[in-house]
Amino acid sequence: MDIKNYMTELGEKARSASRTMARADTVAKNAALLHIADAIIAAQDTLIAENAKDLEQGKKDGLDDALLDRLELNAERIAGMAEGLRQIAALPDPVGEISDLNYRPSGIQVGKMRVPLGVIGIIYESRPNVTADAAALCLKSGNAAILRGGSEAKYSNQAIAETIRAGLEKAGLSQDAVQVIATTDRAAVGELITMTQYVDVIVPRGGKGLIERVSAEAKVPVIKHLHGVCHVFIDAAADLDKAVAIAFNAKCHRYGVCNAMETLLVDAAVAAEVLPRLQAEYATENVELRGCSRTRDILPGINVASDEDWDEEYLAPILSIRVLDGLDDAIEHLHVHSSGHTESIVTEDYSRARRFLAEVDSSSVMVNTSTRFADGFEYGLGAEIGISTDKIHVRGPVGLEGLTSQKYIVLGDGHVRS
Amino acid sequence: MDIKNYMTELGEKARSASRTMARADTVAKNAALLHIADAIIAAQDTLIAENAKDLEQGKKDGLDDALLDRLELNAERIAGMAEGLRQIAALPDPVGEISDLNYRPSGIQVGKMRVPLGVIGIIYESRPNVTADAAALCLKSGNAAILRGGSEAKYSNQAIAETIRAGLEKAGLSQDAVQVIATTDRAAVGELITMTQYVDVIVPRGGKGLIERVSAEAKVPVIKHLHGVCHVFIDAAADLDKAVAIAFNAKCHRYGVCNAMETLLVDAAVAAEVLPRLQAEYATENVELRGCSRTRDILPGINVASDEDWDEEYLAPILSIRVLDGLDDAIEHLHVHSSGHTESIVTEDYSRARRFLAEVDSSSVMVNTSTRFADGFEYGLGAEIGISTDKIHVRGPVGLEGLTSQKYIVLGDGHVRS
Repeated sequence: MDIKNYMTELGEKARSASRTMARADTVAKNAALLHIADAIIAAQDTLIAENAKDLEQGKKDGLDDALLDRLELNAERIAGMAEGLRQIAALPDPVGEISDLNYRPSGIQVGKMRVPLGVIGIIYESRPNVTADAAALCLKSGNAAILRGGSEAKYSNQAIAETIRAGLEKAGLSQDAVQVIATTDRAAVGELITMTQYVDVIVPRGGKGLIERVSAEAKVPVIKHLHGVCHVFIDAAADLDKAVAIAFNAKCHRYGVCNAMETLLVDAAVAAEVLPRLQAEYATENVELRGCSRTRDILPGINVASDEDWDEEYLAPILSIRVLDGLDDAIEHLHVHSSGHTESIVTEDYSRARRFLAEVDSSSVMVNTSTRFADGFEYGLGAEIGISTDKIHVRGPVGLEGLTSQKYIVLGDGHVRS
Repeated sequence: MDIKNYMTELGEKARSASRTMARADTVAKNAALLHIADAIIAAQDTLIAENAKDLEQGKKDGLDDALLDRLELNAERIAGMAEGLRQIAALPDPVGEISDLNYRPSGIQVGKMRVPLGVIGIIYESRPNVTADAAALCLKSGNAAILRGGSEAKYSNQAIAETIRAGLEKAGLSQDAVQVIATTDRAAVGELITMTQYVDVIVPRGGKGLIERVSAEAKVPVIKHLHGVCHVFIDAAADLDKAVAIAFNAKCHRYGVCNAMETLLVDAAVAAEVLPRLQAEYATENVELRGCSRTRDILPGINVASDEDWDEEYLAPILSIRVLDGLDDAIEHLHVHSSGHTESIVTEDYSRARRFLAEVDSSSVMVNTSTRFADGFEYGLGAEIGISTDKIHVRGPVGLEGLTSQKYIVLGDGHVRS
């Protein structure tokens, strides 16, 4: 197979389909999503059979149990995929929204119209349900999609792609609106992320290694979510009951998620009072604590936090703790060590809350809440294709709106410039 | 000079200054802009003397008269620079604006806060006034800037940089908030556009060659303005008086600008009536017409438009004209040949106006107005750093808001996730 020709053909089809998707009305897009949901349910036996091939190959290749679990499709997960499609059908259509339409002194009327980005390339790992999920978000936002799933899920992904094509056809939309790359050759990714004439944005969903590789080589703009080294800062004026509840929830609600707290910063003024209380709480969940020297003066038994700990995304029941003096030192620590994902201050002090909100340069900045709220569903986006730690285009949880852009529209009545 | 070390030092200083700029209040930023304006006026003699060195070198290097004219600073242009700074001081501060702050079912309050991008790299050619102009836009939007002007304006640019530093100091802001690269070594540009740890976005301002080179090599995201192949489409239902006025204004109001019309599309139903009228108008300005065969059936004397003409940005009194059948063919022509800048339809037909607005994929889409209105000042942005023909981040005229991003803010009262 000539990968370059193959990808060029995919790109041309996607560009062409993106024109028809951009003008597809809400009725047609929702119909397609509901037809795909039905097709997924109807294809349950096929999906499970194709998925079994992936699982068998995965076992041969020595994938660990966690990976095999993520790879597996069963009746419940298939029903979940269909339900996800129906939920996206129920969301408002972002395309065509006109805002800020005002008359200018010249007499023209100028406003903005929300429009699809065009063609979105999505590169993801293992979980086959992403195929349906990502396709649905792209379709609803009026985009065409080129999807590249993990090679370990190739049979599953192609089987899901069939249901998507069937649903698109039934709704009278182009079957090329969602294409799943059929080859597992890595050169296909290299083409996808450099075909600037056919692809408008790349969304990588996966581990840090994948995202760094894609970012380094891409010529197409990338909406990236690198990693989440999230912090809670317990200020001198914190309500310590809230502080304990938030710091416990941010660490222990779930470990393997990007919005879990990895480092706790504590103002020295309250450290001696709050740290022993927190230690007792964390002990109930067997969280390993690693502290700076000032932390260990208060909690002598805990491990030492090394320099590397301040930049580590543990995704595990481990927490590094640093005691410091006041808000300025906390903000300085964040400038050096935060990954720009989510940080929260616990304080009752008005001015420091206001400063923290203004000065901390992360995609989500919080006061008196758990970092675990940084999530598209919690924020009311209705869906999420990822969380952007970039500053350009879109920051934080990315929903349908993040897959659109705004163009200017100008209405006149024969107006010319003088 | 070790370019890599030099640029790294600039980058570190800019990153550090961007922290202080991000928290500088409106009072301080406006004070800096007004102090810079005063410093520019006070330094008039120095600026003219340094500019004379550039002009002398330019003459030696054989720059043509147009380039030398663009390079020249005189009392009037220096006053214009200062006035531009005062106008930017008078604009509303985009930073800190909070929008969409709403309660969620969990009890948290979620909204968006507008924040600076961080460090902006601007690469531009010849005109030294861009140094003051670009610096002012970056400062007002709370960003730090690294500026790289054309080597032909090096003395002028460094003299202007001195006035900027003086103004920043007087306002109590970091002098590193605006740095003008002191070397004319091209390797400095290579560093600037790949220092992703220090630079958040690159804005190239110049010819197509510069922008293509920057885009091809950049690792930092680029807000690019490639070129403007703008179109007017005269629909079958056009009011022909409006059509003639708009098509004449779009071509002849100014030639060397990106929002001038380069190709006129005419529905065959009205071509025989409108084209002779337009030919008479264009003759008064000696505009060269190049037509497709159907155009030349109506205007037999004009030149032939070759295939290349449909993609040409003339920036000159030349116009290519194509006669076609209906809106679909016009939209198809635009998909192939438009540069995504600005297109206008002239029509009294409601449904076709609506379709044109929705389906044409350009940064500005217009009904019954001249393409010459595609401009930050005409749109009410108050200032313009360029016109983006990209789809990501910002499209169309880029003002202060285009140099900012939005982060999420979350307010709670001890909320944790259950």
